[in-house]
Amino acid sequence: MIAEQMREQVKNSSVIRAMFEEGKRLAEIYGSENVFDFSLGNPNVAPPEAVKEAILEIINSEEAMNIHGYMNNSGYEEVRRAIANSINQKFGTDFTQDNIVMTVGAAGGLNVIFKTLLNPEDEVITFAPFFGEYRNYVSNYQAKLLTVSPNTLDFQPHLEEFQDKISPKTKAVIINSPNNPTGVIYSEATIIKLASILRAKQKEFNSHIYLISDEPYRELAYDNIEVPYLTKYYENTIVAYSFSKSLSLPGERIGYLLIPPSVSDYENVLAASNIATRILGFVNAPSLFQRVIARCLEAKVDIDTYNRNRELLYQSLLSFGYECIKPQGAFYLFVKTPIEDDLEFCQRAKQKKILLVPGTSFGCPGYVRIAYCVAYQTIEKALPGFKELINECK
Amino acid sequence: MIAEQMREQVKNSSVIRAMFEEGKRLAEIYGSENVFDFSLGNPNVAPPEAVKEAILEIINSEEAMNIHGYMNNSGYEEVRRAIANSINQKFGTDFTQDNIVMTVGAAGGLNVIFKTLLNPEDEVITFAPFFGEYRNYVSNYQAKLLTVSPNTLDFQPHLEEFQDKISPKTKAVIINSPNNPTGVIYSEATIIKLASILRAKQKEFNSHIYLISDEPYRELAYDNIEVPYLTKYYENTIVAYSFSKSLSLPGERIGYLLIPPSVSDYENVLAASNIATRILGFVNAPSLFQRVIARCLEAKVDIDTYNRNRELLYQSLLSFGYECIKPQGAFYLFVKTPIEDDLEFCQRAKQKKILLVPGTSFGCPGYVRIAYCVAYQTIEKALPGFKELINECK
Repeated sequence: MIAEQMREQVKNSSVIRAMFEEGKRLAEIYGSENVFDFSLGNPNVAPPEAVKEAILEIINSEEAMNIHGYMNNSGYEEVRRAIANSINQKFGTDFTQDNIVMTVGAAGGLNVIFKTLLNPEDEVITFAPFFGEYRNYVSNYQAKLLTVSPNTLDFQPHLEEFQDKISPKTKAVIINSPNNPTGVIYSEATIIKLASILRAKQKEFNSHIYLISDEPYRELAYDNIEVPYLTKYYENTIVAYSFSKSLSLPGERIGYLLIPPSVSDYENVLAASNIATRILGFVNAPSLFQRVIARCLEAKVDIDTYNRNRELLYQSLLSFGYECIKPQGAFYLFVKTPIEDDLEFCQRAKQKKILLVPGTSFGCPGYVRIAYCVAYQTIEKALPGFKELINECK
Repeated sequence: MIAEQMREQVKNSSVIRAMFEEGKRLAEIYGSENVFDFSLGNPNVAPPEAVKEAILEIINSEEAMNIHGYMNNSGYEEVRRAIANSINQKFGTDFTQDNIVMTVGAAGGLNVIFKTLLNPEDEVITFAPFFGEYRNYVSNYQAKLLTVSPNTLDFQPHLEEFQDKISPKTKAVIINSPNNPTGVIYSEATIIKLASILRAKQKEFNSHIYLISDEPYRELAYDNIEVPYLTKYYENTIVAYSFSKSLSLPGERIGYLLIPPSVSDYENVLAASNIATRILGFVNAPSLFQRVIARCLEAKVDIDTYNRNRELLYQSLLSFGYECIKPQGAFYLFVKTPIEDDLEFCQRAKQKKILLVPGTSFGCPGYVRIAYCVAYQTIEKALPGFKELINECK
């Protein structure tokens, strides 16, 4: 009696649930300390102390009515102003509170902007490997997700194929850098080419193509690599940001959309985003956490912890003979499987009590994602298993 | 360049925004203390002290990682267990944590259940007057909202007309009691008849019709009137609850869906609700506030404050000659306009610096909604204006 579309979803998700249940079963048998779960992108580094301080300060000094009440669907003006100022300081931009719509995380933000933009049968393009939920977010609005095949050389996007896939139906392109699942940061050269292709295609088709930049991992960039700020390269850019990873607050569902004045049909995009926030049932981003993040915009989680994990795992896997691009950001390693079938490899890994996600889930078979947002010790203890795994594949 | 459907939304909302802007303009000219805003359903009674205590206790005693992290999309197990136990104690039911899906308020919950249930072209029935957002929530999933005309005698639903509107396409019925905008509580007799009609129609059409009970105002019932708990009357009932009004936390977006084991296709409805929570972009209900409400399930806002407002406004308006059903719950009065045109009446009210919402917005022209969740003094100061208004209409 549930919706047809959801029947399909339930069927698929039961496969994932089976994997999850298997992990739980293993933990029960061998103890959770002997099961190495690299399957979840759940931050393991604590939120900065500033978060707790902000909560206490707000709760102890402000009126409860003001902390927990309704506000404009776009969010508190002073919060949006603080965010705009912070972006301007970091990137030399010139945004105001009017360009910010507070959202229920980046997932909420992406749904709001897709609801705002997409007509049924519109096309959205993304680059494999990509976060699998994009498929759902796009189909929620009866639009179609087209994917560009992975460039396994360096996981920068395949721009020639991209160019060929753009049609008059292309309404949006969604990119994610630092990338889940590769950890790759799209280079400035990539962004410049991407922008120039988009501009040319807009002209060719007399259309408007929005570039949606999904940025939950922006602050997780290693070795001081700069992550280009896309509004400076392409005028039709909209940013979906989340504090889930930058402040380790994934459960609180807090993020924002940045909608620059330069985007096509700006006034309507802004007004419609505000309305979409309401009618999709979000109504507004959680009120206390709007105030909290406004006080923590310069705070950061300790990314050295992730970096130590990255180095240990990357160097060890290389030494065992695995092939892998060194991630520049996020907390994932995307590793070529020593056998072709990534699902089979995940099964074998599970026998070593190592839980991984197959690349197939990201539109890139023949790889696995290892989420290294785990305790250092978990990696250390899992390394012998990784070594055995590759040796058994030889 | 925005979606066609959203273009329509932006056009309509600019009318409401114009009203809002006018209110702001009046406040600037006359001072906000001399503008009487009865247009918003925003609680003016502070959250119970237990909310603050719960926040402090959680923040000071638990690990930040546990407070703000991801959990199952349905929410924390212990929170869901606490809610199920609390419902069982109050209503003699027998639910478990498995029957609860935590949601981003009732608005989020309604979207999750509609996404779960509705195929395009399915029909959902509701009773006028009704919360206007239902129209959007249903059309988000390409389904159709059918409305039963208002029964202005006592604002209990027109059950004969309802019966005639049920078709094989009817997938759900949504009711809201205590009602926004009338404040009426659907009587047990009404519920029993409604349930019997639904059962007969299910049999006639060999179909499954879900009764969605939207209950943000359940705890706001006056004079110890009991609000029937619908799962006891009709096995295909799903409850969408919110803590926005019961704990005055509208900005925090916290509520739940109750999905009893008795509903048709139970396992799938439950699994699909969990998935819908994820793919609609909610991901989960805000984590800290899940924990907070679990500690405040027996706390209540001071409804005496609302009750004093209700008595003052109701008695005064009657004495001026207005016609109105005495509300039994919520914080709204739904008043017959002394002239036929409710939009024109709202315009005239604005000239007295009184801001109201026309009944037309709720599918019931010829009435206005007065939200009395305002300071007592605001009502006192507005009364002369209400008196002048009706006298000028004579």
